[in-house]
Parts: sequence; structure tokens; C-alpha cells
Amino acid sequence: MNVLIVFAHNEPRSFNAAMKDLSVNTLEAAGHAVQVSDLYAMGFNPVASAADFSERANPDYLVYALEQRHAYGKGALAPDIAAEVDKVKWADLIIFNFPIYWYGMPAIMKGWIDRVFISGLCYGGRRIYDRGGLKGKSALLAISLGGQAHMFGPGAVHGELEVMLQPILRGMLAYVGLRVLPPYVAYHVPYLEEAERRSILEGYGLHLQGLDQLEALRFPSLDDFDETLRPCVNAASTAAR
Amino acid sequence: MNVLIVFAHNEPRSFNAAMKDLSVNTLEAAGHAVQVSDLYAMGFNPVASAADFSERANPDYLVYALEQRHAYGKGALAPDIAAEVDKVKWADLIIFNFPIYWYGMPAIMKGWIDRVFISGLCYGGRRIYDRGGLKGKSALLAISLGGQAHMFGPGAVHGELEVMLQPILRGMLAYVGLRVLPPYVAYHVPYLEEAERRSILEGYGLHLQGLDQLEALRFPSLDDFDETLRPCVNAASTAAR
Repeated sequence: MNVLIVFAHNEPRSFNAAMKDLSVNTLEAAGHAVQVSDLYAMGFNPVASAADFSERANPDYLVYALEQRHAYGKGALAPDIAAEVDKVKWADLIIFNFPIYWYGMPAIMKGWIDRVFISGLCYGGRRIYDRGGLKGKSALLAISLGGQAHMFGPGAVHGELEVMLQPILRGMLAYVGLRVLPPYVAYHVPYLEEAERRSILEGYGLHLQGLDQLEALRFPSLDDFDETLRPCVNAASTAAR
Repeated sequence: MNVLIVFAHNEPRSFNAAMKDLSVNTLEAAGHAVQVSDLYAMGFNPVASAADFSERANPDYLVYALEQRHAYGKGALAPDIAAEVDKVKWADLIIFNFPIYWYGMPAIMKGWIDRVFISGLCYGGRRIYDRGGLKGKSALLAISLGGQAHMFGPGAVHGELEVMLQPILRGMLAYVGLRVLPPYVAYHVPYLEEAERRSILEGYGLHLQGLDQLEALRFPSLDDFDETLRPCVNAASTAAR
């Protein structure tokens, strides 16, 4: 399996960095090929702008997704984007390894999604969800949180973690056709003792060794929606006709 | 009222830019003071890093939120952050005006949150939600979407918009104590005819003129959680004691 690890942390000796190192070692030991995009180390530019295209479909008015589609077809994507797109195409599994900032990705990683999940290759029209452009590949979140496990769930102070992660799990990963594996979540990381950190790291190693046994999360199927993306009233019978 | 408009779009003649211009005109005509942070025009840096602090509590190991708190106290925040923090303190209402990218903010605006909503001023410990540091101020999302209204809702292809916006509405805005007004959502923007665009813009003007009448969204109260942020079993009776 080819594994791309997209990693973002601004402290090189962080717990997230230890997760990243562990995943490289664990996956390589299991015979997989691994590439790491260490976004802070790369000085990755997260800002989607006109500078991302060396040729434009419409030089006078920027519609970013339309220009992504055009530039991908013409080989006119900025080199830093093109390099990441090549890694995405190469990968069978993409791991996103980051600390939760404001219930989402740090901006440097959100901008990787904005710029690298290009229209045309990854999605377009009805090529979304189970017809998405990255169908056949898988994705895994490996994240750390400041909060404790009891702060998440129905009725908990921050609500359900699955809800807070919906824009990522569904809106980014499932949307482009990725098979979304259950996230590995390290709680309360800034406040842990060394032994607890080690135990959570070991848990991550086991999660990675058991990827084959994990059941993917469930998301919409385009089979259940019509041409205008309205729900089919009788999805099954419509499909049977 | 002092209004800060945080604006992000990479096309200066975009629909979002027209929303921004309309809001400046409408709010100033109503007697409010307005400042705009036009993130693309400013070349705003969205990457949270060690470079954000001219003095460190711990120079050897970066815990970003801890250094925010330290640097805010010492006046050691990077000048671009300090300028935005001053605008936040000045504002009674903060409007976030942006196109939805991947069910969230474009990275340049996500990074504004990461870097400007500093620990210490905006939150810390149990100073969250209705005890958050920005209590007394309000926030409004003014957003555009590529999708159509029928693609959002229970059972719709993209699910409920309120769920997709939870990390922003609850995790960013309500979390720091802001009173969160109902978002103004412009659907299907890249595909609209001129007359439809004008009608949606007019709707935004009316939304802004009627801000006083809008009922804020509801989020958790810290009164219902104990010292460890676990739900109080009898929140009301506990509060009455």
C-alpha cells in the first residue's frame, strides 16, 4: 500500500510529531511505502489565489474551482500544488495528522485541502461521495485534542465529536470519494504524563496495524439522489427500473 | 455600534466583495462605525507559528495557546495579530464574510481565527461559551455557497447546513462568548443571473437592517456543567442552591 501522511504541527518535538514518526515506522515495517508532507517544514502556502495558475480560463475574473479544473487539464497548476496532487494520485491511503484547532484543521492544513483537492480530479458535477474522483483510496484522521473524552458526546459540553468533525469527514474526505476510516483521537494531550502519552501512542500503533479490520464510516450514496441531487423518493425501485 | 467585517475572497469583483461593500454602506448609513479586515488585500498570514511571539514563556517547546496567553500579557504578539486583536476588542459586532470552501472558511480566514482568537483574551479554562472572553459582543456569518438550498437539510445530499457550520458557529464563535446571529446564506452564487444576485444582495441588506430583531442561536451554558465540565445532574436545582 502507498501511504501519504499529511502532517501539520508547529512544534517539531510535539506529540503529533511522535504520532507521525510512529506511523512512518509502523507502516514501513509492515511493508508499505510512505511519503510525508510535513507542511510546516515545507513552509506550505495555504492561501488559494490567482497565483496558483500559470494559465487561466478567464484571466479577468477568478472562480477558483473553475481555474483548478482548467489548470489541471493544461498542466498549469503551481508547482507546489502539482507535487501534492501527484502524491494524492500515488497514495492508496492518506493520513491527516494534526492537532485540532477550533474544531478543525490548522489553517496550513485547511489550505492544503483548498489548494490540492482540485476540481476536475477530485470532484466535479455529480462525481461526489461514492462517485467522487478519489474513489478506491482511503483516508484516516490522526488527531490530538486539548479536551478530555467526557467533554464530547450527546449532552456533553462540546457536543458530539462526530458532529464537530463532519465538515472534515463528510465535507472533505467522503465528498471526494475517499473511504473514511474511524479517526484515531488522542485526548487531553497537552496535559498528559509521559506514561499516558506512551500508552496513547501505542494505541495509535495498534490502530494502524489493524486498519484492515476497521469498518469505514457511512456517507450518502449518489444512487439515492436524482440528477438535480434531490433525494429519490423510491431510491431502490428507481435503481431497479 | 462598532462593526468589524472580516472578509476573504480572492476575486476583488466577486459576489462576496459586493456583500462586503453593501454591508459597509448599509451599516455606515445606519450610523455605525465600520472597519474591514480584507484578508487577501492585506496579504494576511494564516499560519500559526513560533514567529508569532517576540518573547516566549517556554522558548524550547511551543504550545501555541500557552504562548498566546503569555505574549498577550507581555505585549509580545506579532504586530499583525495585535492589530487584529485591537479591532476585535473595539468591535460590538464581528461579521465574517466569505465563500464556503470545503464546508468551512477559506484557510486565510481559518488562520485569522487560529492566530487572533487568542487564549487569555478570548477564552481560557472555564471562560468559554456564556462565560467566554468576548461575551457582550455579537457575530454574524455572511457566506456564499456553490450548492443550492435543496441540497441542504435533513436527508438532503449534503445534510443539514447547521451541522456543517457547527465547528464555526459553536466551536469558534459561541465558544468565545459571542452572541451568534442567524447566518445569511447566499446559495448557488457562481451560477446565478444578475437579477438573482441583486435580489440576494438586497436580502442581505434587509438582514443587516433587521439585526436587532434577530434571535440569537442557542448554545450550552456553563451553568449546566460542573468544575470538570461534566453535565450537572440537576442543573436547575444546583443553580438554585
